[in-house]
Amino acid sequence: MGTDIRTQSLAKPVPVAEYLFTRIHQLGIRSIHGLPGDFNLVALDYVPKCGLKWVGSVNELNAAYAADGYARCLGIGAIITTFGVGELSALNGIAGAHAEHVPVIHIVGCPSTISQRNGMLLHHTLGNGDFNVFATMGAQVSVDVARLNKPGEIANQIDHALRECWVRSRPVYIMLPTDMVEKKVEGKRLEEYIDLEEPKNDEEREDYVVDVVLKYLHAAKKPVVLVDACAIRHRVVEVVRQLVQKTKLPVFVTPMGKGAVDESSEYYGGVYAGSGSQESVADRVESSDLVLSVGALKSDFNTAGFSYRTSQLNTIDFHSTHCTVRYSEYPGVTMRGVLRKVIERVDVKKLARVESPAVKNEVAENFEDSKTITQAWFWPRVGEYLQEGDIVVTETGTSNFGIWETKFPSGVTGVTQVFWGSIGWSVGATQGAALAAKDLGTTKRTILFVGDGSFQLTCQEVSTMIKHKLNVTIFLIYNEGFTIERFIHGMKAEYNDIEKWKYTELPEVLGASPKQVKKFIIKTKDELEKLLKEKAFNEAKGLQFVELWMDKEDAPRALKLTAEISARNNARLE
Amino acid sequence: MGTDIRTQSLAKPVPVAEYLFTRIHQLGIRSIHGLPGDFNLVALDYVPKCGLKWVGSVNELNAAYAADGYARCLGIGAIITTFGVGELSALNGIAGAHAEHVPVIHIVGCPSTISQRNGMLLHHTLGNGDFNVFATMGAQVSVDVARLNKPGEIANQIDHALRECWVRSRPVYIMLPTDMVEKKVEGKRLEEYIDLEEPKNDEEREDYVVDVVLKYLHAAKKPVVLVDACAIRHRVVEVVRQLVQKTKLPVFVTPMGKGAVDESSEYYGGVYAGSGSQESVADRVESSDLVLSVGALKSDFNTAGFSYRTSQLNTIDFHSTHCTVRYSEYPGVTMRGVLRKVIERVDVKKLARVESPAVKNEVAENFEDSKTITQAWFWPRVGEYLQEGDIVVTETGTSNFGIWETKFPSGVTGVTQVFWGSIGWSVGATQGAALAAKDLGTTKRTILFVGDGSFQLTCQEVSTMIKHKLNVTIFLIYNEGFTIERFIHGMKAEYNDIEKWKYTELPEVLGASPKQVKKFIIKTKDELEKLLKEKAFNEAKGLQFVELWMDKEDAPRALKLTAEISARNNARLE
Ligand SMILES: Cc1ncc(C[n+]2csc(CCOP(=O)(O)OP(=O)(O)O)c2C)c(N)n1
Ligand SMILES: Cc1ncc(C[n+]2csc(CCOP(=O)(O)OP(=O)(O)O)c2C)c(N)n1
Ligand SMILES: [Mg+2]
Ligand SMILES: [Mg+2]
Repeated sequence: MGTDIRTQSLAKPVPVAEYLFTRIHQLGIRSIHGLPGDFNLVALDYVPKCGLKWVGSVNELNAAYAADGYARCLGIGAIITTFGVGELSALNGIAGAHAEHVPVIHIVGCPSTISQRNGMLLHHTLGNGDFNVFATMGAQVSVDVARLNKPGEIANQIDHALRECWVRSRPVYIMLPTDMVEKKVEGKRLEEYIDLEEPKNDEEREDYVVDVVLKYLHAAKKPVVLVDACAIRHRVVEVVRQLVQKTKLPVFVTPMGKGAVDESSEYYGGVYAGSGSQESVADRVESSDLVLSVGALKSDFNTAGFSYRTSQLNTIDFHSTHCTVRYSEYPGVTMRGVLRKVIERVDVKKLARVESPAVKNEVAENFEDSKTITQAWFWPRVGEYLQEGDIVVTETGTSNFGIWETKFPSGVTGVTQVFWGSIGWSVGATQGAALAAKDLGTTKRTILFVGDGSFQLTCQEVSTMIKHKLNVTIFLIYNEGFTIERFIHGMKAEYNDIEKWKYTELPEVLGASPKQVKKFIIKTKDELEKLLKEKAFNEAKGLQFVELWMDKEDAPRALKLTAEISARNNARLE
Repeated sequence: MGTDIRTQSLAKPVPVAEYLFTRIHQLGIRSIHGLPGDFNLVALDYVPKCGLKWVGSVNELNAAYAADGYARCLGIGAIITTFGVGELSALNGIAGAHAEHVPVIHIVGCPSTISQRNGMLLHHTLGNGDFNVFATMGAQVSVDVARLNKPGEIANQIDHALRECWVRSRPVYIMLPTDMVEKKVEGKRLEEYIDLEEPKNDEEREDYVVDVVLKYLHAAKKPVVLVDACAIRHRVVEVVRQLVQKTKLPVFVTPMGKGAVDESSEYYGGVYAGSGSQESVADRVESSDLVLSVGALKSDFNTAGFSYRTSQLNTIDFHSTHCTVRYSEYPGVTMRGVLRKVIERVDVKKLARVESPAVKNEVAENFEDSKTITQAWFWPRVGEYLQEGDIVVTETGTSNFGIWETKFPSGVTGVTQVFWGSIGWSVGATQGAALAAKDLGTTKRTILFVGDGSFQLTCQEVSTMIKHKLNVTIFLIYNEGFTIERFIHGMKAEYNDIEKWKYTELPEVLGASPKQVKKFIIKTKDELEKLLKEKAFNEAKGLQFVELWMDKEDAPRALKLTAEISARNNARLE
């Protein structure tokens, strides 16, 4: 096979797959999730060649969840699937990343451009000669679609897709035909990294918004800061920290914002979620005459069923695409630049500061005599168990609401999927999060709180944790089924029951040596107290699997409330 | 809440959910697959009320696979999921049913029409106020989409969707908002069943095609019948049987047609898949001067990499939407009517009948001295183990190709997904198939052959088999990874390896009592011989789990060949 004219004109020809994976490495990614398939096999040979680790998940949905968890902890993640069967299996995971603003690069190995052109009746097609139908679906949950069909355009397409993924913090879809994998593109480009800088705001417009913000801020009598999901996802957590540092204003988080603020800080006021909040928190936020709301994502479950009692007249919204001051919108003026200037220009002497009540882990308050572990007692207790720097993953179900009552130590990363809420996600996400921690060279503990129902959907991803020897502690809430659903509808319904598994025996079946896994069945408060005080348990080496018994009709306060509102909303007839 | 005017005008008002599930019951379905979610909970209350069993799978992809397997055995299947997260998880399974012409009714419980109209920021949305985005994806793999938004139209929409599903033998998508579940529709309609009759061919056109067919058939010197996937899926198996009965022509099946023809019949000639066939079979089919090809689906894996050496000049194609005689197409003239008339009008005295060599299970021929179970020896041996009426499920991987070498007894149902080829499918499909057998009141054995790699993707569906006490025998081919992929690319590549699980211990972890499951680890031919002769094993009560050791670089003949062609096709540069 001779070198074609196009390749001869390249200063440093490199294969497409090498170009792509080198770019991915340059973004900081060290592990790639996914599964092989005959349309991606040759590409996979380039993964180790480019300094990347192949994770090899157990199925594609798990892999997508894992890439999502990886991205939440390392900044960005990647997954490779095969055409049709693989990518569609991953689709729900990618959709979740899209909904929750998580940058995941989805590479799909697909049939050769020649097979596509000839409309061949290949396996993994629908049999209608349409090779773009899955990409069209993928496009619905991606901010860029790159079909790598023409060698001359590929390097540009890749760079553009990766930049979009990062800057807009959402998934992109890259379709890599088998015959393009080893085509040559310009390797010289790799000497310069992709520009990941967010576009700057127009100076004059930005200054205008900053002036308006400062005007209200200086005039406010009880201003507070409220930090939500998109502050984390669009990477302004550090800016927010500086804002609070400088202004010393009380700062609150939403459920999806948990982890964005140092909860041991004296300025931290608690979790605000409308009537799902602790009373003192609700009072404080709702009596504020100016809420600086950063990265809000006011979905039903994040607001305890749209139960905010704050007024837009008292709110300034900072977003990744625009800002809104009361009802004035400023499209294209993004939060990072505005917040930076607010920090610079705020006159702290003009600020009214009204402190918030201190946030405690109310373990004692929720203690009662029974041996049973109650949701009310458990979650504050978790706050005392957690350590600085932990990665805490929670699943849709009682844990996602319970964690509102857990005060985090400094530097805890909160990982939840409150908005998209796909159960089973957390098991994959935990694998990805723990792997990210490892790839970043830290020895962080990754701790998962997952319901028995959710765990069943994706249980086999524990195998991947074992394979990569990740440090993961799993608390499986054993309450015989779908408690969250019971509170929405069908408390005793059969469809909310699940099969009884021997959960703690699963890791060994899935490949763990007895030495690699520690397993615990915990039925009482005392047993739990004892476990949480064990030195070895707190060191959290390898895989620790805790089956935690709770009552099936017990749920965190905020969940009961939200479920009720949800049920009412579903049933509403006009 | 008063009765509105519309409801007052109904002769027999019934809630939408009751109408829907009654219709589904009338189609013969007795079990509904799926998972609960807050947007479908109220609808689920109607499942038992309408005489249906709620299956409750472990995740939505598994549920979709199971509904597919159920439909392949009972004629039609149904699955209920919840908006976004649930339906997208199922999408790959539905796509497979679409590709392979399997009628699956997909019902998606979604937010109320009011929430939709108000564009509420609900969980399980993408956050863009678009409530149709998932339906748009679903539409790509469905032959009808019914959005049940207006009570006055719902009964019609349901009847139309169910008819389309059946007649076109492909999935339909039904979107059921929470506020429509209990709206009233006309229950009187339920007294008459939905018309499921296929549209009749235009008489004159049909007669014309029949004449042409007979002309060629009477003139042919070595005519044969070749039966493929769509003969099964579009329900002409009985018609084909009559055709062979009357004409006594040699009849062959493709890999996807396996099970369509009584393989113990004297007219049965074997599996034809181009150069993937046994030599005698290839010779016989390819030397034929007239192939009556029924329901062909000539995909790469079904034809051993497009390796047919038959000519369209010697072929008559019978399809569910048209017929093709040599190069003459007859759109709208469908196979059932044409075949029936051919049977009626064929003059058997004018038929040339050349017999085919007899088909045997060549167990002895493939025996060699080593203790190792080889693929070559195993698959013919399976033919001796199988019994009349068995349901045999095979998975993409060595089993899908190995089964070509297995001669079925009479009345065996073959269940494979050769075209779509999504691994993991078979575990769900087996659950559905075994449940269908039970719902039909039979005591059939359901026997699965699945690779270790594929099994891992969907292993937890074994839990559902246990829950419903299904009779399933699983042969898990333990060959340490993705052997089929090794033959395509990367024989020693790490990405083709998998974690070592203790497979046989899984059922008990997933809820089986020790009495409910029998487990076997079989490493040699002798051990297998012994097992296959055990009376209790052959009776196949409950769950039997056989871990079967084979060499990781061993593959059936046809697979090696197809893999080579596939790899070449992937790499082809022009
Ligand atoms: C993929 C998917 N399927 C179904 C649902 C609907 N759903 C939401 S929560 C839940 C039950 C979770 O049960 P479990 O994990 O046991 O939580 P807990 O008992 O702690 O509430 C279900 C079925 C969903 N959110 N995602
Ligand atoms: C959902 C999905 N993911 C990936 C693939 C690609 N693929 C096809 S076969 C196969 C390996 C199957 O391995 P195994 O089940 O062990 O079969 P065997 O070893 O018997 O060949 C893979 C990964 C696929 N077809 N479907
Ligand atoms: Mg539970
Ligand atoms: Mg294998």
